[in-house]
Amino acid sequence: MVRINESFLSMKKNYLFIDIAKRLAAYRQTHPDKELIRMGIGDVTRPLAPVVVEAMKKAADEMGRAETFRGYEDSGTGYDFLKNAIAEYYRSFGADVKADEIRINDGAKADCGNITDIFGNGNTVLVTDPAYPVYVDTNLMCGREVTYIDSNEGNGFAAMPDKSIHADIIYLCSPNNPTGSAYTREQLEEWVAYAIENEAVIIYDSAYEAFISDEDIPRSIFCIKGARKCAIEMCSLSKTAGFTGTRCGYTVIPDELIVRASDGSEVCLADLWARRQGSKFNGVSYPVQRAAEAVFTPTGQAQIKENIEYYKENARIIADTLDSLGISYTGGKNSPYIWMKCPKGMGGWEYFDYLLNNIQVVGTPGEGFGRNGAGYFRLTAFSTHEKTAEAMRRLRSIS
Amino acid sequence: MVRINESFLSMKKNYLFIDIAKRLAAYRQTHPDKELIRMGIGDVTRPLAPVVVEAMKKAADEMGRAETFRGYEDSGTGYDFLKNAIAEYYRSFGADVKADEIRINDGAKADCGNITDIFGNGNTVLVTDPAYPVYVDTNLMCGREVTYIDSNEGNGFAAMPDKSIHADIIYLCSPNNPTGSAYTREQLEEWVAYAIENEAVIIYDSAYEAFISDEDIPRSIFCIKGARKCAIEMCSLSKTAGFTGTRCGYTVIPDELIVRASDGSEVCLADLWARRQGSKFNGVSYPVQRAAEAVFTPTGQAQIKENIEYYKENARIIADTLDSLGISYTGGKNSPYIWMKCPKGMGGWEYFDYLLNNIQVVGTPGEGFGRNGAGYFRLTAFSTHEKTAEAMRRLRSIS
Repeated sequence: MVRINESFLSMKKNYLFIDIAKRLAAYRQTHPDKELIRMGIGDVTRPLAPVVVEAMKKAADEMGRAETFRGYEDSGTGYDFLKNAIAEYYRSFGADVKADEIRINDGAKADCGNITDIFGNGNTVLVTDPAYPVYVDTNLMCGREVTYIDSNEGNGFAAMPDKSIHADIIYLCSPNNPTGSAYTREQLEEWVAYAIENEAVIIYDSAYEAFISDEDIPRSIFCIKGARKCAIEMCSLSKTAGFTGTRCGYTVIPDELIVRASDGSEVCLADLWARRQGSKFNGVSYPVQRAAEAVFTPTGQAQIKENIEYYKENARIIADTLDSLGISYTGGKNSPYIWMKCPKGMGGWEYFDYLLNNIQVVGTPGEGFGRNGAGYFRLTAFSTHEKTAEAMRRLRSIS
Repeated sequence: MVRINESFLSMKKNYLFIDIAKRLAAYRQTHPDKELIRMGIGDVTRPLAPVVVEAMKKAADEMGRAETFRGYEDSGTGYDFLKNAIAEYYRSFGADVKADEIRINDGAKADCGNITDIFGNGNTVLVTDPAYPVYVDTNLMCGREVTYIDSNEGNGFAAMPDKSIHADIIYLCSPNNPTGSAYTREQLEEWVAYAIENEAVIIYDSAYEAFISDEDIPRSIFCIKGARKCAIEMCSLSKTAGFTGTRCGYTVIPDELIVRASDGSEVCLADLWARRQGSKFNGVSYPVQRAAEAVFTPTGQAQIKENIEYYKENARIIADTLDSLGISYTGGKNSPYIWMKCPKGMGGWEYFDYLLNNIQVVGTPGEGFGRNGAGYFRLTAFSTHEKTAEAMRRLRSIS
């Protein structure tokens, strides 16, 4: 009789977005005339940049002609044209990454989950709480335990290493989803030192790096000395260039990231990942890779910057409103997320219902992201100016 | 200290295509003037059908306009427009599959590898030998053992169940890569009966179904009664519609595929897979899904049929040549693969070198696919008519 992976059964189901959808459906049923403003889900709304669309169409045409048709990609890790463009992008903000250390994927989520494959059981997996649920769930799925370190009001929702706790694998996300906090250079140096001290690996999620404007906040873990010996970085074009539905991201595993096996031999993690991907992945769609390449051209960068500035203006509108209402929050500056404290001691779900019922604004209860999310609420800057401004007008009206 | 997954270290490295590449590079170095004909790698050469290219370009345009832009796909399992088209396609050859049992992916390889996640350790994993190396490698990676069942000359390289062996998970591929054999309805009925008897799950790889022309060879395991209780099917547009570089496939997990957990509770495998994918996958690129949808339109089907017929004509040219030379083989009829016995008792690598040195034709040594591949050689029908005919002319010249 076939045996299932029973770790799935012991996992707590994450009902967050299902619960939200249910409450919204129920509300709509009883209030069909009310206009909801959704500021909950982290999806973008701005279309792809014109240069990206043109690149994809040109590549589609190439695929339709025998002379320019492309089948399997030899390496399955991405075409050089795209890896070179991304390496150049990394250089532009001082990160030390070589083109052949970059692996192109169909969005950061897959690699972020699949990376568990190359690690063994028995590692202490450290996750900051609150966190993107994928870090936790993908470890629980393979029967591993997760140790949490608190992000809270005391540390500005940006957890720092606790030297009394040992860790083997450390998940960090900066700028952070959901809290909007972003680590400074000094803070990241502390994390890298802690990882090296613990002979640990940092899984660094930099999906929101394009929203960073402060000079002392690095846009990559590889801006930090020593990170090449202890970190894997995962990034995505989802938020940078509106690729949530187009699907392209990249993972950087430096050549210097070498760990010891139980027999004492040295193993390059990039080799293990190559072996894993060689059996379970066949590369990213060629037209999508050409579309991604266009993001990194000067025209592409100018066009996507318009969209990012658009979202950042939304974040400013939200932050200004919360400032004037005296509501404390993190994020909103180097991040598309605003992580606010629910007023009047309300819990996140209570505040969710309160906003829904009174002003028809939809956000995400902090409880969905972990223990320290209780009493907090996530708003995103990915809506339109008009809807964001209207939501904030409504918020003022009840405050 | 971080612990790696040490199963990777004990895996035999599959050097097959690396070895081939090395030998070719060495030959080219010493014979720069010789024209090689590559009939080894299973990649296609015909461009995407015009209707597919147009659909992708139209979708790229949609992504460039705010009114039609698409971000994250709600379910991450594929848009209904594509699932409905594939369900209709299944109905056209009598397979019992519902649209919501179909999960769209970025090519069959990922799901074929990742499906190991939902199964536990301790299963007896049965793989026909020779086989597509992914079935074996992805199980070894998670520390599982593989039991082999022989495909050989005696059974026409189409292994049948051995009732003396127990199995929990069974990998079948029909039409088969690499042997080109294809199971008849009766043979598949026997496999389904065996799986049900063993309370096992069949992982059925139907990537080459579009090459089937014989009426008694089913194009899906779901043409077989009972399969909905014991099988998962994985298919791909790679060979059907030349999507090796465009990346789209689909996995079918029927609602009726229910297994018992150790506590006796019933678990729907589709639910486990949904949970897995919900944490590790974010859906397929929208323009790629629109391109895939076009494959299943009447125009799309007519256009891809031209390509398939083109390859099948190549297969006939190869088969006719081998017939006339008295070389025995399987495949070539309902398959793009021709699995030939090496002449004069040569081993696969010996024959590889022999063909390379004497007629500059490149194929794949059977040894790369398992123990029973020794002394066999795989040729593919994916080249051009001209090159295929020229390769066969050369083969006759040395026979």
